[in-house]
Amino acid sequence: MQPHSHHSHLSILLVFFLLFAGTLQAVEDDSLPSWNDGSSKQAIIEFVNQVTREGSETFMPTAERIAVFDNDGTLWAEQPMYFQLLFALDRVKALAPAHPEWRDKEPFASLLQGDVAKALAGGEHAILEIVMATHANMTTGEFETIVTEWIAQAKHPKTQQPLTGMVYQPMLELLDYLRDNGFKTFIVSGGGIEFMRPWTQAVYGIPPEQVIGSSIKTRFEIQDGNPVLVRLPEINFIDDKAGKPVGIHQHIGRRPIAAFGNSDGDLQMLQWTTAGDGVRFGLYVHHTDAAREWAYDRDSSIGKLDKGLDEAAKHGWTVVDMKTDWNTIFAADAGS
Amino acid sequence: MQPHSHHSHLSILLVFFLLFAGTLQAVEDDSLPSWNDGSSKQAIIEFVNQVTREGSETFMPTAERIAVFDNDGTLWAEQPMYFQLLFALDRVKALAPAHPEWRDKEPFASLLQGDVAKALAGGEHAILEIVMATHANMTTGEFETIVTEWIAQAKHPKTQQPLTGMVYQPMLELLDYLRDNGFKTFIVSGGGIEFMRPWTQAVYGIPPEQVIGSSIKTRFEIQDGNPVLVRLPEINFIDDKAGKPVGIHQHIGRRPIAAFGNSDGDLQMLQWTTAGDGVRFGLYVHHTDAAREWAYDRDSSIGKLDKGLDEAAKHGWTVVDMKTDWNTIFAADAGS
Repeated sequence: MQPHSHHSHLSILLVFFLLFAGTLQAVEDDSLPSWNDGSSKQAIIEFVNQVTREGSETFMPTAERIAVFDNDGTLWAEQPMYFQLLFALDRVKALAPAHPEWRDKEPFASLLQGDVAKALAGGEHAILEIVMATHANMTTGEFETIVTEWIAQAKHPKTQQPLTGMVYQPMLELLDYLRDNGFKTFIVSGGGIEFMRPWTQAVYGIPPEQVIGSSIKTRFEIQDGNPVLVRLPEINFIDDKAGKPVGIHQHIGRRPIAAFGNSDGDLQMLQWTTAGDGVRFGLYVHHTDAAREWAYDRDSSIGKLDKGLDEAAKHGWTVVDMKTDWNTIFAADAGS
Repeated sequence: MQPHSHHSHLSILLVFFLLFAGTLQAVEDDSLPSWNDGSSKQAIIEFVNQVTREGSETFMPTAERIAVFDNDGTLWAEQPMYFQLLFALDRVKALAPAHPEWRDKEPFASLLQGDVAKALAGGEHAILEIVMATHANMTTGEFETIVTEWIAQAKHPKTQQPLTGMVYQPMLELLDYLRDNGFKTFIVSGGGIEFMRPWTQAVYGIPPEQVIGSSIKTRFEIQDGNPVLVRLPEINFIDDKAGKPVGIHQHIGRRPIAAFGNSDGDLQMLQWTTAGDGVRFGLYVHHTDAAREWAYDRDSSIGKLDKGLDEAAKHGWTVVDMKTDWNTIFAADAGS
């Protein structure tokens, strides 16, 4: 081998290295491409830099980098009604032939006539009746199969998109960005824990053991020699409002350092998270884009954000203005 | 540099490499040095080989490699009484000056006179009274501090060893061996979840979010502007017997592929785990060594192993004979 040839090889390697390094740099600078430059994006990046900068006073070891995310309205849409309610309504229709008595019994009668508003006029009691009729009295394995089959084909009533395409692209990027920086990401949702677990790994990259939610009780039984867990028509835990810090403590056993929500139901989770020692991060997604998504806050029956907005201002939490902070809303529109 | 010298350097490097490779090999062959060669050790290694052999029918992706371990009697000793009871007794003594009424009130009166047997004669009710008096009515942060300080100095009444030295060295090696092979290790204990979490990372390498146990209820409150979780004198969940599969499902959301226990309280956990599809592993630690540890099974009031022994034989679960399978029992004796 000639010295000249040797040098050429080195030069080529050097060029490749520089090209490659440039690519890496570009990727690193653009972990959040669906986030427009502005104070929200800047606050996120600054927080991550603070806790990952080794040797700094604000550094947090990876074990402590726990981030918790509400689901409905924070990771995916929640209008015109919680998607789990769409599931329950579809289940009522599917189960109706085996329940002739539902034709004369509320809330089922109204539901089967397509009058959701009238069915839900019964309030909490009506919702509980629907949930128990559609979520209980089967094994955990059977319920998992039902959810898995349903989510694979469920379409949004307004956009006709698959529901799993109606997750927020900026939040998917944020989840990845945090995990790339050593965070463990958890869902902490008022929704049903077993309604989410079958699909959170595929959609959010969050495994079932990092999903916290509301639940009904289960009972261990041996049926025909086969051990099963039977879902009982009895509330076990409501993971909402003051229940969220309780659920976090029960499942995770340490205080998160970052919390992401969109409603007053997430307020206590943000309070609990941001009151810890060291650098903490609280963020509210504010639904401000009636054209591309929905616009609602203080007066909404779904995802009401009232006290939370005031508290965010008081504590300096980041409030994402969906309309100006996000250049893409839904994963379905991101072409990913 | 002379060619000869150059060669010598290469030779030295080669020798070092071979030495190092030899070391690596030796380490790999001896991940379980405290386990004597025999059917128990062989069954563990064969199971791990089966689920980690890519392309084989028995292969399990890492996400599914969930292993669950009972704590008392499986990871550390449980004689002459559960160590958490030692904690409760110490707390009763520490709190007694503030509770003059305990001098005339059972089970406290007997406890304070040193008569544990008489105190516990009140059965479940007596135990509940002791637990609530010593574990509740404080914040989760306060309880964590109390446990952390206690475990740092607590000594075993018989051996005078630190309690954290009375964990089983072979089980520590097993935990490491499984994790080195892509397993996620969880504790699933009848003991208190918040009694374990402050020290499981340091002692077992198991983080708080992978600890499942019995719990009392907590309530979120804002005290003087500071959000806290208050521990209430009310049972939330008993993670024992048929409660173990329920706790596993609630926390992990998928079925483990390996379960390790030592008593009838672990039977349902082993049934639930081993009834899943594919290769599964169930193991009972059988306390057979009265000289080095304790010997007890079918008639013991603590860690009774009766039905479990029969079921183990029926299902082909591995039963560890502590006396012959383990050449070292306690971590304190392993010099590690």
